[in-house]
Amino acid sequence: MYDIAILGASGYTGAELIRLIAVHPEMRIAALGANSKAGQSMSDVFPHLRHLDLPELVTIDEIDFSAIDLCFCALPHATSQEVIAALPKTLKIVDLSADFRLRDSEAYAKWYGGAHAALDCQAEAVYGLTEFYRDEIRRARLVAGTGCNAATGQYALRPLIAGGLIDLDDIIIDLKTGVSGAGRSLKENLLHAELSEGTHAYGVGGTHRHLAEFDQEFSAIAGRPVKVQFTPHLLPANRGILATVYVKGEPGAIHGALRDAYASEPFLQVLPFGQVPSTRHIRGSNYCHIGVTGDRIEGRSIVIAALDNLTKGSSGQALQNANLMLNLEETMALTAPPVFP
Amino acid sequence: MYDIAILGASGYTGAELIRLIAVHPEMRIAALGANSKAGQSMSDVFPHLRHLDLPELVTIDEIDFSAIDLCFCALPHATSQEVIAALPKTLKIVDLSADFRLRDSEAYAKWYGGAHAALDCQAEAVYGLTEFYRDEIRRARLVAGTGCNAATGQYALRPLIAGGLIDLDDIIIDLKTGVSGAGRSLKENLLHAELSEGTHAYGVGGTHRHLAEFDQEFSAIAGRPVKVQFTPHLLPANRGILATVYVKGEPGAIHGALRDAYASEPFLQVLPFGQVPSTRHIRGSNYCHIGVTGDRIEGRSIVIAALDNLTKGSSGQALQNANLMLNLEETMALTAPPVFP
Amino acid sequence: MYDIAILGASGYTGAELIRLIAVHPEMRIAALGANSKAGQSMSDVFPHLRHLDLPELVTIDEIDFSAIDLCFCALPHATSQEVIAALPKTLKIVDLSADFRLRDSEAYAKWYGGAHAALDCQAEAVYGLTEFYRDEIRRARLVAGTGCNAATGQYALRPLIAGGLIDLDDIIIDLKTGVSGAGRSLKENLLHAELSEGTHAYGVGGTHRHLAEFDQEFSAIAGRPVKVQFTPHLLPANRGILATVYVKGEPGAIHGALRDAYASEPFLQVLPFGQVPSTRHIRGSNYCHIGVTGDRIEGRSIVIAALDNLTKGSSGQALQNANLMLNLEETMALTAPPVFP
Amino acid sequence: MYDIAILGASGYTGAELIRLIAVHPEMRIAALGANSKAGQSMSDVFPHLRHLDLPELVTIDEIDFSAIDLCFCALPHATSQEVIAALPKTLKIVDLSADFRLRDSEAYAKWYGGAHAALDCQAEAVYGLTEFYRDEIRRARLVAGTGCNAATGQYALRPLIAGGLIDLDDIIIDLKTGVSGAGRSLKENLLHAELSEGTHAYGVGGTHRHLAEFDQEFSAIAGRPVKVQFTPHLLPANRGILATVYVKGEPGAIHGALRDAYASEPFLQVLPFGQVPSTRHIRGSNYCHIGVTGDRIEGRSIVIAALDNLTKGSSGQALQNANLMLNLEETMALTAPPVFP
Repeated sequence: MYDIAILGASGYTGAELIRLIAVHPEMRIAALGANSKAGQSMSDVFPHLRHLDLPELVTIDEIDFSAIDLCFCALPHATSQEVIAALPKTLKIVDLSADFRLRDSEAYAKWYGGAHAALDCQAEAVYGLTEFYRDEIRRARLVAGTGCNAATGQYALRPLIAGGLIDLDDIIIDLKTGVSGAGRSLKENLLHAELSEGTHAYGVGGTHRHLAEFDQEFSAIAGRPVKVQFTPHLLPANRGILATVYVKGEPGAIHGALRDAYASEPFLQVLPFGQVPSTRHIRGSNYCHIGVTGDRIEGRSIVIAALDNLTKGSSGQALQNANLMLNLEETMALTAPPVFP
Repeated sequence: MYDIAILGASGYTGAELIRLIAVHPEMRIAALGANSKAGQSMSDVFPHLRHLDLPELVTIDEIDFSAIDLCFCALPHATSQEVIAALPKTLKIVDLSADFRLRDSEAYAKWYGGAHAALDCQAEAVYGLTEFYRDEIRRARLVAGTGCNAATGQYALRPLIAGGLIDLDDIIIDLKTGVSGAGRSLKENLLHAELSEGTHAYGVGGTHRHLAEFDQEFSAIAGRPVKVQFTPHLLPANRGILATVYVKGEPGAIHGALRDAYASEPFLQVLPFGQVPSTRHIRGSNYCHIGVTGDRIEGRSIVIAALDNLTKGSSGQALQNANLMLNLEETMALTAPPVFP
Repeated sequence: MYDIAILGASGYTGAELIRLIAVHPEMRIAALGANSKAGQSMSDVFPHLRHLDLPELVTIDEIDFSAIDLCFCALPHATSQEVIAALPKTLKIVDLSADFRLRDSEAYAKWYGGAHAALDCQAEAVYGLTEFYRDEIRRARLVAGTGCNAATGQYALRPLIAGGLIDLDDIIIDLKTGVSGAGRSLKENLLHAELSEGTHAYGVGGTHRHLAEFDQEFSAIAGRPVKVQFTPHLLPANRGILATVYVKGEPGAIHGALRDAYASEPFLQVLPFGQVPSTRHIRGSNYCHIGVTGDRIEGRSIVIAALDNLTKGSSGQALQNANLMLNLEETMALTAPPVFP
Repeated sequence: MYDIAILGASGYTGAELIRLIAVHPEMRIAALGANSKAGQSMSDVFPHLRHLDLPELVTIDEIDFSAIDLCFCALPHATSQEVIAALPKTLKIVDLSADFRLRDSEAYAKWYGGAHAALDCQAEAVYGLTEFYRDEIRRARLVAGTGCNAATGQYALRPLIAGGLIDLDDIIIDLKTGVSGAGRSLKENLLHAELSEGTHAYGVGGTHRHLAEFDQEFSAIAGRPVKVQFTPHLLPANRGILATVYVKGEPGAIHGALRDAYASEPFLQVLPFGQVPSTRHIRGSNYCHIGVTGDRIEGRSIVIAALDNLTKGSSGQALQNANLMLNLEETMALTAPPVFP
C-alpha cells in the first residue's frame, strides 16, 4: 500500500484525484495540502467526498514527506514550481500544473511570461502523455501532466504527423471544452448565469498557452517546426473536451494510422470509420474516443477526439502515470465506465 | 464469479447496471436481453460502454437461464410481470420495475389500473429497500426494487414514523427529480428544448404511483393508515432526486433518530444538524445524503434527502440487493464516490 | 417622452430594465449610474445591449437629476437607502432593493441586521406589488419593489387569505428559483460547475429575508399574525421562480377566488383547474401563471405560481409601477410574450 | 392592419413567429394552421402563448386565404412545396422550409433526394437572406427563408468572397448550434438526458444540406465553384448558432470589409477587431454579432458569427422579409434586445 499526498486538494483536479484514488487498491491518501483552506475537512470543501475517511486539509509545510511514496501537485501554475523546488529531491511527483510541460526554458518564458523558478526540475521532468512517454514515465521522478486541451489534440494528431500523412502547414484544431477546466476560480464569466445556455470562443488567434505544448510536441515528431491553429470554445457543460481537427490527408490512411497506433491502448478507443464521438460518452472516465471522417473535398479529413478534461485530461492521466511510476498495473482504479446519462 | 443476465439492457437502468457491474470483482455479464434492439451491440445502443467486452443484445427467449446465477429485470412496468412469470422458478431475480413493489393485489390494481398477471410471484417478492429489508432480501429469490422517489422519501421518514416522532397526518414531500427517471422514452416533454432551463410539477394532488409505496410502507410501520402529500417536480438535470419533507415534530429528536438509525449504514449519510444536501454531491453514486433543519415555527422540521435516481434509487440499490442475495459483501462495486462537478 | 435614470446599471436587474425600456415608446434612458464601472460603456458590461445607443456608465454623483423624470435604483441592499436619502426629495423613484419593503423599522432591523439609514423615506415608500397597491403606487413618489420570491408567494396566497379560505397556521411555500436572482456576484456556489446539474435548498427553516415581506403582508391582510413556512431551492436555470404552495382549504373555492381576483389583471393568468404552470412558459416576460390542484386528502390544495424573477419579479414589476407613476398605460413595453424554448 | 396566416403553427418556428407578431403594430394573426393539432388552442400546444387572443388551430383546408394578406409557411420540408403549390398564386408567402432555397432543380434533387413538386414556384422564389436580396424581396410574392446555419455562415463570408479577400479553396466553417434548430420532433438524440452536458458533431464530412446553400450562394458571388468545409455540432443549449470560420486572408482587410458592408445594417453588428461574439448575447433577438481575429500564423483569420437560429436564423428573418413585402418598416417588431441572462 503506497502513501499518497495531494497538494492543492481544494481544487477540482485535487478532488478528482481523491475520487479516483478512493477505490484504488494499492494507494492510501496520507496527506492533503491546501494552504488557503488548511484546518478544514474535505467534507466542508467538497461535500461529495464526505463518506470518505480522509485526513484533514493542512498547509504544505505541515506534511511529513518522508512518509510519502508519491505526491500529486494540483497547485496553480507558478505556485507549483516553487513548491516542487522545495520538496525532497527523491520524492516521486506527478505535477498537474503547466510548470514542467515545456522542455525549453525560453519557450516557457515566452508563453508563461517570466523566467522559470525551478530550472533543474524542469530539466528532469518527463512530459506526461502516457501513451507516448510510457517508458520515460516509468523511470521518472517528476512527471509533468499535460494540458487537457493539449492531450486531446495530440491524441488526434500524433500518429498522423509521425506517419507523414497530413499537410503540416494546414492543421486546425477547433476545440470545445467544459467549464471545469477553468477550475474553481471566482470569475464572472464562469458564473452559471453567464456561461450556461450558449457558447463563445476564447484565446482566439493563437494565444492559448496549450499551443506551446502542441508546438513542442508536433515539431519534435516532425523534425521541423509545426504550428497549428487552435481555437477553444467554452461549452455550457461541466466536463468534457471535443476537439474537431481539420487536416489535409487521406481519410482511410488517417483512420488506419490511428487504429493501428492505439490498437493495444486500454483507454484510447478509435471508432469505426465515419462514426463520431461525444463528450457525453466519456464523461467521468479515463477513456478517449476518436473518430475519423472524410470530407466531401477529396484529400481532406476530420478527426474528432473526446475526453474528460478532469479525468483523462488531468487527474486520470496523473493517476495512470503514478501507477507506472510505482510499478503498478497502469490501468488500476481507472477502468470505471463513463457516467451516462 | 457469478454469471449475470440483464433484461431490458437498452434502457437507462440497464445501462447503469452494466456500468456498475463492469468493475464488480465477482460478477460477469453473461447475457443482455433487449427485445426491441436484439442483434445490436451495446456500443451501438450506449456508446459510453464501447470499451467493455459485452455479449450482444438478444431477445429474452434466446437466453439460457440455466447458466445464469442472477437476473436483473430492467423492463417496463407490466412487461416485467409477464416475463418474470415465465422465468425458471429457481432463478434469483432482482426486478427494477414497479410490478412487485405492492404486497396487496388490490392496491396494485387500483394504482396500476388492472389485475396483476403474476400473483404468485407478487406474493413471494421482497420489497427491496435494502436497509430495512436486509434479512428478507438475503433469503429472497425475487426482490422488487423500490420506486426511486419512494426510496428517497422513505429514507427521510421511516425512522421518524417508527419512533413516533411526527404527526402522521401532516406530512408533505415536495420532491425534485432529474429527467433520467423518466427513462429513454420519446415524449415531447422530455426533449431538451422543452425540459431545460426551468421546472414544473407533475402528478400533483396525489396521483403519482409511488404514493402506493409510501402508503404501504408508512402504514405498516405506523400500524394505522398513513397518507402523505407528495408532489414531484421535474428538474433540468439528468440525475438526482431531492426530497424536501415537511413534518411536525421536534428537529433535535428527528435528527437524532435519523443519525442513530443510519449510524452503521454505509450509504446513508446523515449530515450535521442544520446542513443541507445537494443532488450534485451524490451524483453517479450509491450514497444518500440526509439533512435536518428546524423551522422558525416551533415543533416543525424540514428533512431533506438526496440520492441519485439511477444509482441508489434503482440500479445501485438493485446491485446492493443482488450482493446480499449472492452472499457477497453488500457494498461490493458500489463505493465509488460521486462524480463532481 | 420621459427621461429615465438607472442606478446600478451593471447588475442583472439594471440590464433587464434597459432591455425592457429599449422598446418603450414613452421612455428614454438619459443616465446610467454604476459607480464601480463608471467610464465603461454598456456594451462592455453587457454585450447583449451593444446595438443600443446608450449613455456611458457614470458615477451617481455625475448625474444631473434635475433632468430626470424617474429614477430606477437597482443597487445592492443597504447601499440603496444611502443613495436614495441623498437624492432630490421630489424625484420619482422605483427602488428594486430590499431597503424600503418593510414598513416597520423594527422588522427591518431584525431581518436586515441593523438600523435603517433613511427612515423618512422608508415611511413614505409604497410596497410595489402592483396589483394590490395600484392606487397608492399611482400617487407615490417612492415605490419599493418586492422581493422576487415574495411576489411569487403573494400572488398565490393573498386572495386566499383575504377570502378566509385557508388555515392560516399551516401554509408551506416550497420555492424553486433560477440563479439570476442571486445577481452577478462572484460566489463559489454560483459558478456553473457548482450550480448546474442539480439542486439544493438554502435559507431553510425560516431564515430567508423575504419572509419579512410575507409576515408583513399576510398579517396585514388577515388582521392577525400569520407565519408561513418557506424553503427556497436553487435551480440549474437562469430565470424563473416556481412556488409550490401547500394549503388547507377547498380546492374549488381556492381556484375560484384566484380566478376572480385576477380576472381583469393583464399579467396574472390563472390556469384552468388542475393545470400546472412551468417557469419555461413565462421566461423573459412579465406574465405570472398560477395553477390550482386538489390533493387526494380532502380539504387540502396545492397552488403553484410561476414568474420570471428578473421580469415580473423585479425589473418588469418596476417598470409596471413606473408606468403608473408617470400616468402611462400600465402595460406599456411589458406585453412581449415569453421566450420559449 | 394586415391579416396574417401561419401554417405549421405547432412547431418552434411557428411559435416564434407568433411571439414576434404579438407585438407587431401592423399585423394581426388571422389564421393558424396545424393539421395534426387542428382543433386545439395554442395555449394547449404552447402554454407560453396563453395570454394571447389567438385563433384556434385549424387544418390548412379550413383557412380562407382570400382574407389573408400574407402567409408564413413553417411546415416540414417536402410538405411545404405541396401546400404552397396549392395556395392562391397571388398570395404573398414567406416559406421557412428548405423547399425553395435552391434555384437549381438538379441541386435540389441531389441534396434533398428527389424531384421538386412545385418547380414553377421554385423558379419564382427569392432567396430570403434579407441584407443581400432586399430589393428582390420587396418585389417578391414568394420568399424562401434560408437555412439557419446557412445564414450564419453567409453573414461571416459573403463580403469576403465578394471582395476577393480570401482563398476560396480553404474555407472551414466549424459551427455550433442549439437544439431548437432540430424542431419539436421526437428523436432519441434530442432528449434532455441524451443531449445535455456535452457536445458532438453531426453531418460531418460535407453531408449537411445547408451546404447546398453555401455552394449556390458562394459560387454565384465568386463567379466560379466554391466549396466550403462545414461541420455542425449540437450544443446543450436551446437557442443560438456560433459559426467559427477559418479563412486565409488578411485580418485587417477582412474586418474592414465586414464593417463596411454592414455599416448601415440594423441587425448585423460587427464587433471591434479582436472581440468575439457569444450566442448568449443575441439570444431571443434578431441581432447577429460578428467578430474578426487574426491568427498567429500570418495571413490567416478567424471570423466568428453568432445569431439566434429561431429568430434571425428563421422566424425573425421571415418577419423582416414580410415587413419588406408589405412595404412596412423593415425592423418593425424586431428590435427587442436579446434576453440575457
